[in-house]
Amino acid sequence: MTQGDATQLVQILIFGGRGDLARRKLVPAIASLARRPQGGAQLQVVGIGRSGMSDDAFRAWLRGFPQEGHAEAFDAIAPQVHYRSADVQDLASLAKLRAEVDALAGGAEVARLCYLALEPRLFASAVTLLSESGIVHRHRSEDRGYRRVIIEKPFGHDLASAHALNEAVQRVLNEHQVLRIDHYLGKETVQNLLGFRFHNAIFEPVWNRHHVELVQITVAETLGVEEGRAAYYDGTGALRDVLQNHMLQVLALVAMEPPASLDAEALRNQKVEVLRALRLPDPEEVARSSVRARYGPGAAQRGYLDEVGVAEDSTTETYVALRAEINNWRWRGVPFLLRHGKRLPKRFTEVQVQFRMPPLQLFNRPPDMSDAEFDRALHNGALCLIRPNVLTIGIQPRETIGLSFGVKQPGPEMIMAPAALAFDYRERFDDAPPDAYERLLQDAIAGDATLFLRSDEIEASWRYCDAVRTAWSEHGAVPLHEYPAGTWGPAAADELFRGCEGGWTRG
Amino acid sequence: MTQGDATQLVQILIFGGRGDLARRKLVPAIASLARRPQGGAQLQVVGIGRSGMSDDAFRAWLRGFPQEGHAEAFDAIAPQVHYRSADVQDLASLAKLRAEVDALAGGAEVARLCYLALEPRLFASAVTLLSESGIVHRHRSEDRGYRRVIIEKPFGHDLASAHALNEAVQRVLNEHQVLRIDHYLGKETVQNLLGFRFHNAIFEPVWNRHHVELVQITVAETLGVEEGRAAYYDGTGALRDVLQNHMLQVLALVAMEPPASLDAEALRNQKVEVLRALRLPDPEEVARSSVRARYGPGAAQRGYLDEVGVAEDSTTETYVALRAEINNWRWRGVPFLLRHGKRLPKRFTEVQVQFRMPPLQLFNRPPDMSDAEFDRALHNGALCLIRPNVLTIGIQPRETIGLSFGVKQPGPEMIMAPAALAFDYRERFDDAPPDAYERLLQDAIAGDATLFLRSDEIEASWRYCDAVRTAWSEHGAVPLHEYPAGTWGPAAADELFRGCEGGWTRG
Repeated sequence: MTQGDATQLVQILIFGGRGDLARRKLVPAIASLARRPQGGAQLQVVGIGRSGMSDDAFRAWLRGFPQEGHAEAFDAIAPQVHYRSADVQDLASLAKLRAEVDALAGGAEVARLCYLALEPRLFASAVTLLSESGIVHRHRSEDRGYRRVIIEKPFGHDLASAHALNEAVQRVLNEHQVLRIDHYLGKETVQNLLGFRFHNAIFEPVWNRHHVELVQITVAETLGVEEGRAAYYDGTGALRDVLQNHMLQVLALVAMEPPASLDAEALRNQKVEVLRALRLPDPEEVARSSVRARYGPGAAQRGYLDEVGVAEDSTTETYVALRAEINNWRWRGVPFLLRHGKRLPKRFTEVQVQFRMPPLQLFNRPPDMSDAEFDRALHNGALCLIRPNVLTIGIQPRETIGLSFGVKQPGPEMIMAPAALAFDYRERFDDAPPDAYERLLQDAIAGDATLFLRSDEIEASWRYCDAVRTAWSEHGAVPLHEYPAGTWGPAAADELFRGCEGGWTRG
Repeated sequence: MTQGDATQLVQILIFGGRGDLARRKLVPAIASLARRPQGGAQLQVVGIGRSGMSDDAFRAWLRGFPQEGHAEAFDAIAPQVHYRSADVQDLASLAKLRAEVDALAGGAEVARLCYLALEPRLFASAVTLLSESGIVHRHRSEDRGYRRVIIEKPFGHDLASAHALNEAVQRVLNEHQVLRIDHYLGKETVQNLLGFRFHNAIFEPVWNRHHVELVQITVAETLGVEEGRAAYYDGTGALRDVLQNHMLQVLALVAMEPPASLDAEALRNQKVEVLRALRLPDPEEVARSSVRARYGPGAAQRGYLDEVGVAEDSTTETYVALRAEINNWRWRGVPFLLRHGKRLPKRFTEVQVQFRMPPLQLFNRPPDMSDAEFDRALHNGALCLIRPNVLTIGIQPRETIGLSFGVKQPGPEMIMAPAALAFDYRERFDDAPPDAYERLLQDAIAGDATLFLRSDEIEASWRYCDAVRTAWSEHGAVPLHEYPAGTWGPAAADELFRGCEGGWTRG
């Protein structure tokens, strides 16, 4: 990974500077970054919004964000924080902004990072006008004084819109200048998926269809639709809001082939190959391999249809479970069971790799049982001590690695009992891992695109999700179930395990 | 595993009834066994020695063994405990004993277990005379009223003597009547080697030459030669006292192919195949692949030559380290590094399976280092954070399973740091595992020979050890090093790792 040039001024322009993301995540991340010795570049932050505001008023508003230690960290960069008003839909306004930010640079050579914390519908025109105004321009990757644009999610709402947005951006910028963010990739434990798989030689030999029975990925939330976000969410749903981006990224890291290096292109080439290998289900297959649902009223919580901002006749899902398959040499036939829902009983994100049962059960065999009786008892679950090995990678809230296995129970019989090898990230490392946004901003400044999404990854993800969504909306093949808020979702999702051991994890 | 017949009287005749083993291990094990609900058979214990002694005096002596809870447990079986004097070298004396033990049975149908806790030189003649006196006789395995003989270690002192002893025994008894004991096989954690390997499907695929770089087995003792045992030990040495039996048994369990069942023959067929596949080194190879040493004076401890009972010109080793190889399809070329020593700094028995390094080091790579520089840094150990995965199975004093692996260190660089998945048997299971002798006596009563040694296993073990010992004694190819008591043994042993990562474990 390359470092920023310490002598160069880096201007971070936050479009949507008065927004929640800027105040809650971006500015605290920048303040924290500026404290690190390797922070490198000299930073200047310019918040941009349509309303007028003084630098001081902007600083006071940012400083007031309630987070431990934030005020002190912010004070150290406050003089470098500014506010300018501009309308990203108006070229003249942006031309004026360009003069203003050039002036803020004071004639120094400047590198510029434009963070589009805007409504998604504005992304394409914003990039176009930023280019026309001269705030950014196309350049080669080795040029000094870079111009980069960070685009927040969602990147499109289907394949067609994502492709159109990619075309708009690529008309004015080179790919290396475009950083499509998915903050999940900034999480330590998500990055550790790579380390765990490719630094440890013992897992790779069993990381394939010969030894893995199934993979589960869960993103469970306890929250319902957040206030003020209902209108957006109602037009989006669980599949597009979380599964298409975060979950397919995690799937790609779990399933990818080993890259030849960790550079951005090597890594993303392997990730995109997984996403492109996702089996595209036809409507009949979607009917068998997907479940959608929305939460209804539950104990002390209202149902989705009663949330403020949700349409009366909404058919938006707040829960999705898919049985995906990856049609490649390594994974063909192994179910990847993906599940995401709101208003579930517990908040957690977890990957489970469940290995196949041993081919022969030597242990826990009652005396005087015939081979046929024993096989039947195994098949119908009557001998419940026998469990497959499961590797569990907890991503949040606790960062953990666990491996379940069987050990001999003390005593004269050869009875195996379940046990677990366990590792807890926070017990091993004292420091809390840096926030995902801090990590990603640091990489953006350094020009390391490894943890950002490439255009083809996004389009491959949409292609898969579109196949599911089209079957839902156009073919009506999949009913919209309802589950009481605060429960584990519809029972129909259990059927996605057909032919496999086990059930959905509960974190 | 079959259970004893609860209605049948089982007579346990302990030859060497006045000895240390009988008092310290066998009688406490029988008393503990008798308390278990599944104890099964009705037990009668007859201690046999040359001197005369009353039942009451014998009981008082046994009861007085200082171990928590022993007196209470013993009291419950005291009425079933007897003493009879006899000379196992005298047929007439044994004929008289036969009448006495028949009388003790009171005319009931009796099953009889003869435990030979005798000097090893008496084993062959004792079995012959036991047969001639009618105390035991050859019978089929399905017959009621069994006659079984348990033979303590050492079973021979080389291949020729072990073979002669096997012949003597087999002249009068069938193989299923002969139970050659190695108390290591009675340990829970040794049995768990089987469970761990064959109940967990994820380890078997990497349990071979493609993925394992080396296997280490250590039996480290802090004690020197025990009082009263020096004369025996001086004629034996570390190779024959511990490595030939305990360590090669552990090696067989670690390296064996999966058996088709856990019955005694299936399991022992696979074990013996490993022992027969041990590469027999010629003297030149022994010179390169073995180290022998004896402890000299150390801090506050005398040297071996100063122990009471050791010959002045002794060349007996108290430390042995071997680089063994198993010439079969699974293990060819993988070093099995075996080490046993007395007067080492720590007492522990441990198996370590060290896996190969990943084929490509993606992580911990300093920026701007060429491929060639990086490979050199890896090779000469300059990049020390990179470690292979090691699976550690602790057998004593703590029963543990640990898997070392790398995780991403929190922070912006892709630096991997060592971590460990850990499991402790005693934290998982509350009960202390039963003593090894108790388990083995229970199996002997039930007629389960799984955890006893078959004649061919013992002969294969001796064949290998004889090759080493002959090269030592007849070819003088290997010097006898000396190490200070309380240290880790001779530095020469480190050279056995040649071509591999790592070094001897320190528990």
